[in-house]
Amino acid sequence: MTFKPTEYLPYDFANRRHIGPSPEEMEEMLKVVGAESLDALIDDTLPPAIRQKEPLDFGKAKSERELLHHMRVTASKNKVLTSLIGQGYHGTVTPPAIQRNILENPAWYTAYTPYQPEISQGRLEALLNFQTMVCDLTGLEIANASLLDEATACAEAMTMAQRVSKSKVKAFFVDENCHPQNISVMKTRAAPLGIEVIVGSPDDLDASAVFGAIFQYPGTYGQLRDFTDEISKLHEHKGIGIISADPLSLTLLKEPGAMGADIAVGSTQRFGVPIGYGGPHAAYMATKSNYGRNMPGRIVGVSIDAHGNRAYRLSLQTREQHIRREKATSNVCTAQALLAVMAGFYAVFHGPKGLQAIAQRIHRKTARLAEGLSQAGFEVRPKAFFDTITVEVGPLQKAVMKSAVDEGINLRAVGETKIGITLDERTRPATLEAVWRAFGIEREDKDYTPHYSMPEKLIRKSEYLTHEIFHMNRSETEMMRYMRRLADRDLALDRAMIPLGSCTMKLNSAAEMMPVSWREFSLLHPYAPEDQALGYKEMIDDLSSKLCDITGYDAISMQPNSGAQGEYAGLLTIASYHRANGQGHRNVCLIPMSAHGTNPASAQMVGWKVVPIKSAENGDIDLEDFRAKTELHSENLAGCMITYPSTHGVFEETVTEVTKITHDHGGQVYIDGANMNAMVGLSRPGDLGGDVSHLNLHKTFCIPHGGGGPGMGPIGVKEHLVAHLPGDPNGGEGAVSAAAFGSPSLLPISWAYCLMMGGEGLTQATRVAILNANYIAKRLEGAYDIMFTGPKGRIAHECILDTRPFADSAHVTVDDIAKRLIDSGFHAPTMSWPVAGTLMVEPTESESKAELDRFCDAMLSIRAEIAEIEDGKIDGENNALKNAPHTVEDLVGDWDRPYTREQGCFPAGAFRVDKYWPPVNRVDNVYGDRNLVCTCPPMEEYLEAAE
Amino acid sequence: MTFKPTEYLPYDFANRRHIGPSPEEMEEMLKVVGAESLDALIDDTLPPAIRQKEPLDFGKAKSERELLHHMRVTASKNKVLTSLIGQGYHGTVTPPAIQRNILENPAWYTAYTPYQPEISQGRLEALLNFQTMVCDLTGLEIANASLLDEATACAEAMTMAQRVSKSKVKAFFVDENCHPQNISVMKTRAAPLGIEVIVGSPDDLDASAVFGAIFQYPGTYGQLRDFTDEISKLHEHKGIGIISADPLSLTLLKEPGAMGADIAVGSTQRFGVPIGYGGPHAAYMATKSNYGRNMPGRIVGVSIDAHGNRAYRLSLQTREQHIRREKATSNVCTAQALLAVMAGFYAVFHGPKGLQAIAQRIHRKTARLAEGLSQAGFEVRPKAFFDTITVEVGPLQKAVMKSAVDEGINLRAVGETKIGITLDERTRPATLEAVWRAFGIEREDKDYTPHYSMPEKLIRKSEYLTHEIFHMNRSETEMMRYMRRLADRDLALDRAMIPLGSCTMKLNSAAEMMPVSWREFSLLHPYAPEDQALGYKEMIDDLSSKLCDITGYDAISMQPNSGAQGEYAGLLTIASYHRANGQGHRNVCLIPMSAHGTNPASAQMVGWKVVPIKSAENGDIDLEDFRAKTELHSENLAGCMITYPSTHGVFEETVTEVTKITHDHGGQVYIDGANMNAMVGLSRPGDLGGDVSHLNLHKTFCIPHGGGGPGMGPIGVKEHLVAHLPGDPNGGEGAVSAAAFGSPSLLPISWAYCLMMGGEGLTQATRVAILNANYIAKRLEGAYDIMFTGPKGRIAHECILDTRPFADSAHVTVDDIAKRLIDSGFHAPTMSWPVAGTLMVEPTESESKAELDRFCDAMLSIRAEIAEIEDGKIDGENNALKNAPHTVEDLVGDWDRPYTREQGCFPAGAFRVDKYWPPVNRVDNVYGDRNLVCTCPPMEEYLEAAE
Repeated sequence: MTFKPTEYLPYDFANRRHIGPSPEEMEEMLKVVGAESLDALIDDTLPPAIRQKEPLDFGKAKSERELLHHMRVTASKNKVLTSLIGQGYHGTVTPPAIQRNILENPAWYTAYTPYQPEISQGRLEALLNFQTMVCDLTGLEIANASLLDEATACAEAMTMAQRVSKSKVKAFFVDENCHPQNISVMKTRAAPLGIEVIVGSPDDLDASAVFGAIFQYPGTYGQLRDFTDEISKLHEHKGIGIISADPLSLTLLKEPGAMGADIAVGSTQRFGVPIGYGGPHAAYMATKSNYGRNMPGRIVGVSIDAHGNRAYRLSLQTREQHIRREKATSNVCTAQALLAVMAGFYAVFHGPKGLQAIAQRIHRKTARLAEGLSQAGFEVRPKAFFDTITVEVGPLQKAVMKSAVDEGINLRAVGETKIGITLDERTRPATLEAVWRAFGIEREDKDYTPHYSMPEKLIRKSEYLTHEIFHMNRSETEMMRYMRRLADRDLALDRAMIPLGSCTMKLNSAAEMMPVSWREFSLLHPYAPEDQALGYKEMIDDLSSKLCDITGYDAISMQPNSGAQGEYAGLLTIASYHRANGQGHRNVCLIPMSAHGTNPASAQMVGWKVVPIKSAENGDIDLEDFRAKTELHSENLAGCMITYPSTHGVFEETVTEVTKITHDHGGQVYIDGANMNAMVGLSRPGDLGGDVSHLNLHKTFCIPHGGGGPGMGPIGVKEHLVAHLPGDPNGGEGAVSAAAFGSPSLLPISWAYCLMMGGEGLTQATRVAILNANYIAKRLEGAYDIMFTGPKGRIAHECILDTRPFADSAHVTVDDIAKRLIDSGFHAPTMSWPVAGTLMVEPTESESKAELDRFCDAMLSIRAEIAEIEDGKIDGENNALKNAPHTVEDLVGDWDRPYTREQGCFPAGAFRVDKYWPPVNRVDNVYGDRNLVCTCPPMEEYLEAAE
Repeated sequence: MTFKPTEYLPYDFANRRHIGPSPEEMEEMLKVVGAESLDALIDDTLPPAIRQKEPLDFGKAKSERELLHHMRVTASKNKVLTSLIGQGYHGTVTPPAIQRNILENPAWYTAYTPYQPEISQGRLEALLNFQTMVCDLTGLEIANASLLDEATACAEAMTMAQRVSKSKVKAFFVDENCHPQNISVMKTRAAPLGIEVIVGSPDDLDASAVFGAIFQYPGTYGQLRDFTDEISKLHEHKGIGIISADPLSLTLLKEPGAMGADIAVGSTQRFGVPIGYGGPHAAYMATKSNYGRNMPGRIVGVSIDAHGNRAYRLSLQTREQHIRREKATSNVCTAQALLAVMAGFYAVFHGPKGLQAIAQRIHRKTARLAEGLSQAGFEVRPKAFFDTITVEVGPLQKAVMKSAVDEGINLRAVGETKIGITLDERTRPATLEAVWRAFGIEREDKDYTPHYSMPEKLIRKSEYLTHEIFHMNRSETEMMRYMRRLADRDLALDRAMIPLGSCTMKLNSAAEMMPVSWREFSLLHPYAPEDQALGYKEMIDDLSSKLCDITGYDAISMQPNSGAQGEYAGLLTIASYHRANGQGHRNVCLIPMSAHGTNPASAQMVGWKVVPIKSAENGDIDLEDFRAKTELHSENLAGCMITYPSTHGVFEETVTEVTKITHDHGGQVYIDGANMNAMVGLSRPGDLGGDVSHLNLHKTFCIPHGGGGPGMGPIGVKEHLVAHLPGDPNGGEGAVSAAAFGSPSLLPISWAYCLMMGGEGLTQATRVAILNANYIAKRLEGAYDIMFTGPKGRIAHECILDTRPFADSAHVTVDDIAKRLIDSGFHAPTMSWPVAGTLMVEPTESESKAELDRFCDAMLSIRAEIAEIEDGKIDGENNALKNAPHTVEDLVGDWDRPYTREQGCFPAGAFRVDKYWPPVNRVDNVYGDRNLVCTCPPMEEYLEAAE
């Protein structure tokens, strides 16, 4: 008998794994939504004018197994040599326990930014450890929870210096020994802000002529110098002293704080985070406490909860950039949380003695290397170094470099006649011997401490990592349990939907994540010869081509490391284009009031004037106002920044009108890609008149949020802008981040997603994202007002629930609802954005009907609780909403509340056996901001809290 | 300045990562224990006579990074070809979500056997899914939670058939189409039991002459046959029909139950579990419900908890082999839990339609392969097949095999002139084309369904996997959350100490685990040519040599898949030796009363008579009794089985006396290696007079327990026994399991452990294991009687706490204490073994002082609670001990108890924020055994339970 093959496709990743609702569930949901078919719903939602003409076609989608095979083949085209290039990137040993339990653990990598502190205590503690580590190593008082990379941290430090300095001069001094990429990015940043960058030797610093200065420590060619005198002179002239320091070197060397530095920045990559061809890694920034409130980025702090118990939270959140909008001086609104967590754990794992021993090993090896070279007659500089030396080789530079590559080692070409060598944690005796051979020296490495070493006055005197957390029992058993305990305190995507509007918390599949850990992707140096990165090139080229197809643009730059950085890079591109056309005076940027706060902040950073555009009643851009403003600013119009579909979750029909008007007045159109998840396969910003867009690969293209970073925000541009894209940070101009391709070791995730979904799967994902959102809107209709729908009553991929009326009717705030959702086991939707006092819900395509229903049940139950307050049946102040979230401690203690324990702890939607219990009650924000504590409190306090 | 290098060794795995207490903690602990130094404590504990002469020396211990590099080099010596050998081992696609979230997740792999059901509900549910899957696919009514491998499952089925058959004949029929390794292991098993194995064609079956018969389905060469008639004839003569069936084929083919089979066995390897050069995988066994109580192995069942809610547990536990001792008919006392969990999830992941589609794809490809070969003129057999065909090639067999290897493919040599080919889930069109090329055929594979196919009457008619669990939403998001929910319900080593005496729950480090997932280890077929497994060979040789050094033996066999199987293999080795010396009549085995139940069971299985030896007052072997029994049985003495240090946790000084007496009477000495963790580096069984020992690699050598398997029990023997070790299952004689090296893909773990610890580290681990145990004993002294100490008052690596007095004094049982420990967040120690009514505690070297203290605090607090009952201060029936464990549901509901919620839920030792909450209250064992339900109950019941 020959049977008829079943039509079931077990390896169809898009429909069986990535997309949440099953075909049967979708049928049911369409009935609720009142649409005849998915196509009909999409037709209702997306105006025909904005639909793309041709379906996406990427050929046959790959199964998980085919994908991993394909990835293996691509990976094998990368050659993993030992890179001793240094320049801010170092080989490191990721402890396997950290790799397995953090980097490869969905409990950590699928978490969202810790805006809801009650469900983020684990991550917050890990980040506080990171901040404490940074403060201790730098000798400064307050640190943030990481920045995107060292080069942008330098640029942020520069602008921060300008803010806090009382100096009136507009110039900034940059040590010529800074890493080239740091100089490059600072120059890019300085230009539009009118800051003059003076690059030179610290010997030539004229402190009276600058508002601040930055020094690299150790210098990019290995120099060690005490900057105490320079900083002291700066201070005399109200200038700010910044040191960009390698944190590992600080375990041995005098710390920036001891030199009087006001700000320290640097990269924590070598604290267990693989180089990954340039990223992602966590940069750090620390400063004196009186400058704390001027520091960009997120700061974790200590506060108390409603019962007075200690609780962590993000401090000074109101200071975040999206609130400051056009008053912003930085557009940083994310961190490299996952990588900062890894770096922090690396410090906990090794403790101060371990870190010092690692640093000493590296230094001793470097000294032996230098001695071997010297004894063979080479001139080695500097005499005092930590891990980096520079060797004069005259005309033999190329020959030695090649000979090293033949030995499996990448060295750094310095000038035309020198070679730089930087050792690291992975350097073995065989490595030294291979380097010597590349220089023609046959020599065996033996373990001894040669005389070569660091100057006495630069030896660190102070203690560091004295907090108990860095002295806990460091057996792997204890470390594993500590990581598990922290993970369990958090609520991430591996336990429940995170329905955050505009954040697109979708599945980060295991198959997509696996290649990230492969050595062929993780061990490459960003400045390694290109022929060693052909696998990366193939991946980046193919992914770029797919992203061009998806967006309708002609080229992609992978350089930006976040959405906001993408905005900034995109605007720089436009500005450069205007300048090239003799239109450099164009400096007005139209931005709708409903835009994300990073839009005006980014415009500010390129030196533009922000002109806000009103919203019409229905949430759309007010076309009248838009026309009026373009005409008013026609002469100077640089462009406009719009979001599509709008931040109100609607596909505005007028979008092509807006782009046309802008172009007619000589402006360029930036379309914010934050909402691309509602467009992929259905509509292309490039077709709508966009000239530039950024894509949040961490939203639409499956890079996990990592508890608040990493992210990636590559930009797509039309042909005429290609020449104006960011340049190579290692030698080129106009770079916006330290590595040419941003955080390339994340790209396997997005590429895998595209390859496994195929064009059809990606398009179906978009359709289902819209279905899921409309399903929620329909189920909540009546209970909540859905703000802003399209002409046919449909929403895009997210919806805004108007919760403002309850403030009056029941004294219930959006906060109360958010915290009550925790009792049901949910992360709250986006709060008070884009409209204050509302909730914005985005389910994404990855959530099943059951999970959507669980969420809707929870929301309806909350509405019923509000109604009971409205009806006077429940007390307005002592109720389950106001007391939310409820903890186990509430259950254990006396219960003198007008509702039962059952009602308090198990509202609709809550699991019974599998319930998530928040470790703290509602966190007191005001207390935390008033009493700013941003490092680990002493252990006694932990004990008290436990008792 | 040249600084003095710190002496801190950050990469010292033994002392910084594996061993729990820090040097400072050890100092404090030694004070408590009252020993001057660790050496002094060891001198007190181990009599000088039994100490080994030379320290272990394995050269310099490797760091984690060096280890992984070394593993990479070794792995690269294995060649990964596509193996189409079949014979019970098949390529499979492990879904990445299962690999990441189960196989590589410590929450799953560090769990212990689910003897304490309240803290094992997640694993138990996963295993119940597995059992349900097996029942459905085989069409039988009751299944166990897995067996060690298909070959031993066949042997177990044979002996079970003998037990349940009413037939008086002693012969058993084996289908000649059974896999060779199955036949080999059944023959080994049959011989000592006096069972005659008749191998032949089912056509020649004489049902009156046998108590049962086993058939392979599909046959090893691909044949499909309906065994209904044969089984019917067997039944006429009270015989038992067994089918060994490939479960994937059963998605298309008539199931064993429909043929009337009484028992079905097979391997679930191809359900997502990598081949791993032979294992580990989960074999299955299913039978009719009336034979359920005769089935070997563990069976998960459904019961209720103290509040009447549904709860899972191991059914019929009292029937477990260690209780039956010399009445046992099988020594199986473990399962392949982790692998069964994976296979069960694979079925949940794909559902019936997905499995069917996978099977169909394989079948259609096989049909196309056959058609291509036929059309080229080859004779292909059989005409009806599922995934396996046999091709006649005459004298060209070797040439075609070689040509296939050149194409990267392993085929199977069948006889002298045939070639077997078995396709699988990984087969791609390119694979078919390569096979054709090996046969000299240039042909392109196109996707069509050829006429070649399965016979109508063998097409499956019945439904399977109808339970809701196999129809849940199968998006990866839902699957990931389901896996997380189940993991969270369990308490494993990643959250707390598991102080199980005799089970050695030590750290399974991430670095040790990583290579297990590497394709070079996981994709090899056990019968692939040896030159493709040179990496495995190198590892096995080196590990064997190290284990010989550790034990004092001369050779190791890696074949046994569990400790009990090691015992059995060791005794077979002794029996074979006696036979070779003309002493085949020797059949008496002396075993102390205190021995683990598997000892007598294993002796039983080799046909020996068990003579028990009394224990002296102090727990030692009663030497008088031992002498008397050896003299009495001198003529027929086969040997003795002893455990060292004894199961009472004491190093008996008389051990050399015991071995000498045995040897003097012509017997051989089996030393059970279960307690090797107290000996490594300090004492060697081979030096004490042992002739054979097994080693529990899953206890002493870091293979994780996996929630109840996998395990490995290799045996070490002295020179004179080497010739008698188990033979090659694929062609040799005397095999005890299906693969020559047991479960070789686990060996990287034990090897990594030895390489990273080094001889000194391993010895230090032993010392600290003894220190940790003595520390607990000292802290609990006074509160509990410590049974059995050595002459100087020391214990070995574990101690027995006498809890029997509390039964009288307070009506508190050992069960009450065990359940109360759950409230403190601990897995109970071993209960009622080796002494009924007691607790045996083994902390291992991996636990820190803080965790030991947390445990001691919990135990002391329990003792105080008992004292309050004894003093009449607390009610004897309604108290925290009797009501333990406490759940969140207890907290939520009314609380009418004479103690507070706080006292109930947070006894000493319990974490506050990070407390583990059991999902059920105390499980009712009697109810579960009376109402045997061993498949998933209908979903309505779940709903009821939830409400």
